[in-house]
Amino acid sequence: MPGKKVSEKTIRRLSHYARCLRKAGADGTGVVTSKYLSERCGISSAAVRKDLAAFGEFGKQGSGYEVSDLLENIDRILGTCEPPQVIVIGAGNIGSALLESGLEGTGGYSYSAIFDKNPEIIGRTIAGVTVQPVDKLGEVVGEQGNYIAILTVPPGEGQRAVNGLVSMGCRAILSFVLEPLDVPDGVVLRYVELSTELDLLSHSMRS
Amino acid sequence: MPGKKVSEKTIRRLSHYARCLRKAGADGTGVVTSKYLSERCGISSAAVRKDLAAFGEFGKQGSGYEVSDLLENIDRILGTCEPPQVIVIGAGNIGSALLESGLEGTGGYSYSAIFDKNPEIIGRTIAGVTVQPVDKLGEVVGEQGNYIAILTVPPGEGQRAVNGLVSMGCRAILSFVLEPLDVPDGVVLRYVELSTELDLLSHSMRS
Repeated sequence: MPGKKVSEKTIRRLSHYARCLRKAGADGTGVVTSKYLSERCGISSAAVRKDLAAFGEFGKQGSGYEVSDLLENIDRILGTCEPPQVIVIGAGNIGSALLESGLEGTGGYSYSAIFDKNPEIIGRTIAGVTVQPVDKLGEVVGEQGNYIAILTVPPGEGQRAVNGLVSMGCRAILSFVLEPLDVPDGVVLRYVELSTELDLLSHSMRS
Repeated sequence: MPGKKVSEKTIRRLSHYARCLRKAGADGTGVVTSKYLSERCGISSAAVRKDLAAFGEFGKQGSGYEVSDLLENIDRILGTCEPPQVIVIGAGNIGSALLESGLEGTGGYSYSAIFDKNPEIIGRTIAGVTVQPVDKLGEVVGEQGNYIAILTVPPGEGQRAVNGLVSMGCRAILSFVLEPLDVPDGVVLRYVELSTELDLLSHSMRS
């Protein structure tokens, strides 16, 4: 589906299908039905069929879908045929826990580097990755920008970190920092905001 | 605004205003303008004015808003006048890191308990909170259900944990577990899915 704009909701569902298909492939399953994907992804069967029908090349409805074909097509949309490397800026509690938890079960991502500015932390090894000084960023990741940076720096230090990343050519940032950040056009920024999630749940509990 | 349904997007913005107002209050600022909120929250001035105007009682446009009044009104909508306690199920890397990072700067939330089923972890203290066995859940949190449970159990163990929480009366769950989970009506479930966030960024990078 070249040139076609895909909504965030659709990408979210494709992300679930891809994880499920990777697991199915690893288990030796060659063909799956929309019912199979529906049950394992917790997404209605109708939505699965509609998503897959929208990508005509994905398989024949009724006889199921070839796992490898379907996954290849979804990976092409997600950009995970050759998944970008993931780097972490900030080796505090959350940054360290992310590396220790790893990225198994995801779209083939892996952590390639972690950076911090604290001399006491630099040089430590977390899950096999050595913490490097932030000013080595350019040297380590180069200036291609083909990586995703996860930001776990302390509050108040987010924008400076973002500016540094952007100046190094970084084009995708996932921020765990609880503050609004500015990025120029062409750079994608998403947030994981625990505090906002708690407020959303708190509000729902009393509705 | 009793009885009025508020969208998720609006709640997200209110959550940002509340954090900003709490900080302003702590800094001794008594009155804020929509421009002040706009700049500090990274939300357009027009959106701020529209949000606040929708809640007539919030202040007088033009002369600014009383920080304490505005915060009280937003807290009422968010349910954070008396914020629910937060408990964590799973004291692995992420669960421990959450406790160690704390909830400062949020809507007054705090971690009141953490649970695990691993005998080697039970009894440890993380950021002042002792890890308790999961089967003590009912005893510790009671059956009021007025708390938010953050789920950080290993993959494959999510649904069992959810069933246990629901049977104890829990009504709000935030899951870091990478699998779809079922909850009955009346229970709110939200997800923090790192893998999906990476896929969304990966997709955007190539669009």
